[in-house]
Amino acid sequence: MLTAVRYEDLADVPCSITRPLVVLGDRWTFLLVKQAFAGTNRYEDFLEALGIPRGRLADRLDRLVAEGILRREPYKAANSRTRDAYRLTDKGLALYPVLLALRDWGDRYMAPDGPPVHYRHRDCGGEAHVRLECDTCHEELTARDVVPEPGPGMAAVAQAL
Amino acid sequence: MLTAVRYEDLADVPCSITRPLVVLGDRWTFLLVKQAFAGTNRYEDFLEALGIPRGRLADRLDRLVAEGILRREPYKAANSRTRDAYRLTDKGLALYPVLLALRDWGDRYMAPDGPPVHYRHRDCGGEAHVRLECDTCHEELTARDVVPEPGPGMAAVAQAL
Repeated sequence: MLTAVRYEDLADVPCSITRPLVVLGDRWTFLLVKQAFAGTNRYEDFLEALGIPRGRLADRLDRLVAEGILRREPYKAANSRTRDAYRLTDKGLALYPVLLALRDWGDRYMAPDGPPVHYRHRDCGGEAHVRLECDTCHEELTARDVVPEPGPGMAAVAQAL
Repeated sequence: MLTAVRYEDLADVPCSITRPLVVLGDRWTFLLVKQAFAGTNRYEDFLEALGIPRGRLADRLDRLVAEGILRREPYKAANSRTRDAYRLTDKGLALYPVLLALRDWGDRYMAPDGPPVHYRHRDCGGEAHVRLECDTCHEELTARDVVPEPGPGMAAVAQAL
């Protein structure tokens, strides 16, 4: 079993769940991504929406830009110097199923008064939900139905050790 | 817009994405859950698998038990006193789609050598993937196809303010 000496080393673990968590899994980063999906894109607005300390916010936005999840886009408000807005990239937008999977769980276990928000399909008005399914037989799956098996990315790491 | 003064206050925000993140979104908690899905259930094994500091581990396991995501189960190894193992509850097991949504993203953006792990459907050998879909027309959806709309849990919070 690999023993990670430093937290950052976990990014080398051959696991596509661990690697995203090392990037996103701190107190604020995932919340910033969620807030960006809610339409927030300015430093001051992130600050107000989340109550995140200033230095922390600047650091986390820098990291999200470095990871290619957000991109900077200059904007100029009236009577003010040009500043950066932060927009989700395609890589960032691709995190949406993760957030809606969290939402399904949150609605189920942490919403005693019912769902705070319905996420509706723009075209038909139905609700968006995440479904874990088999890409072959299309059955809906739970953890008990799934067995892990080493893939090509595991062999590559084993060779490098 | 709500301004959260303390981090913990974010759990009161009427948002079923924010609430789970306040519980799970720190450097270690999500990784512990992932590790539990990988079959790790003893304190020493979590320690070895993740390189997490001891005090941090004890604190995070306590919190996951308090949240009903893990439960303690006593076990007795040979020549040793009885200790606690940590097992996922049904509430914990229900986080699986979140982890596999992260995995899909990780495989796409953070796995240059290909998927480290295939997650196979035990019955048919197909692969498990997360699909964001409309519960009415069953179309696959992206962030651009979805519009949020206040639900009953939003009204309840608004009344309490």
